[in-house]
Amino acid sequence: MDIFVEPIGRLINEFSKLPGVGKKTAQRYAYKIINMSAAEAEGFANAVTEAKRKVRYCSICGNFTENDVCDVCLKRDRSVICVVKEPKDVIALEKLHEYKGVYHVLHGVINPMEGVGPNDIRIKELLARVGEGGVQEVIMATNPDVEGEATAMYIARLLKPLGVNVTRLAHGIPVGGELEYTDDVTLSRALSERKSI
Amino acid sequence: MDIFVEPIGRLINEFSKLPGVGKKTAQRYAYKIINMSAAEAEGFANAVTEAKRKVRYCSICGNFTENDVCDVCLKRDRSVICVVKEPKDVIALEKLHEYKGVYHVLHGVINPMEGVGPNDIRIKELLARVGEGGVQEVIMATNPDVEGEATAMYIARLLKPLGVNVTRLAHGIPVGGELEYTDDVTLSRALSERKSI
Repeated sequence: MDIFVEPIGRLINEFSKLPGVGKKTAQRYAYKIINMSAAEAEGFANAVTEAKRKVRYCSICGNFTENDVCDVCLKRDRSVICVVKEPKDVIALEKLHEYKGVYHVLHGVINPMEGVGPNDIRIKELLARVGEGGVQEVIMATNPDVEGEATAMYIARLLKPLGVNVTRLAHGIPVGGELEYTDDVTLSRALSERKSI
Repeated sequence: MDIFVEPIGRLINEFSKLPGVGKKTAQRYAYKIINMSAAEAEGFANAVTEAKRKVRYCSICGNFTENDVCDVCLKRDRSVICVVKEPKDVIALEKLHEYKGVYHVLHGVINPMEGVGPNDIRIKELLARVGEGGVQEVIMATNPDVEGEATAMYIARLLKPLGVNVTRLAHGIPVGGELEYTDDVTLSRALSERKSI
């Protein structure tokens, strides 16, 4: 005899597929579902199906959208493109309500250790967009880790011959951070990129 | 314009209803769903619906089951009943593969602060089971916190006149624990309930 009733065991198994969710957490989630009303559980299941069914990638920038082209690409200034690794990076930037340009989601970064080459991410789509003309600036906003830096440098080298201004997010001490606890590389970057005030 | 595409926002909202899941974690879960294959996402949604639809409470012990009466109640020694607060406590005990009796799930404990009285949990069902005869021992396995203890004491007082042996799980220092880090109440219980070896 199994410890778990079959449908609960199956649900626990499904929840365990979520990132960072172990057996115990999955169990808590499953019990929560069982304790929901039928309508609530139905709503939950529907949200999963709908999200998967309705959400696709914008044919221009590669971000999530319900339509062929996303709202950002339709309505905003296309002369500035901000290049990010993943859709969640778009969310992080959109939260600022400051950036007025459009995005380009690479869906990954170049990572030879994991077999991800330049052709595996959306670089040629970016080159095509810039090639169409009208783009003045491309902001490289990949993560400041080894792969992110390498990808930014690689793309910058391809873009410069097209006569476009390529920039990179600034590195430095995080606002509110302390010198004492800032890592060496960041501190060294903050020093070398110091500005007159 | 919303930061999130509507179906993703809705999914994030649903995931936020799970215990201990905040906005950020819900977002990670939602992206995981979007990155699943359509079949996987369908399987996930189905598991939620099925669990809610198929799982009900055993009419005897109150534990989760797919049928009217659960396998434990059908197949095991009914002369010993272990009383627990929630279905997940049954899982904890079943994992030991030691206990051969049946269970009684209270679905809560008496908690006047939250307005839960003796009539709000499955106490009368327990009395009815014991009243039918054939029960020799009732093991009170509610949590060793204030409400759990009070509930155990309350039920014990009701059961004793029925001529049944009422026992309680032992308290003491956890195996592998250290005296130094054991809290005072536990240590004091361990001392007063010491055994000759």
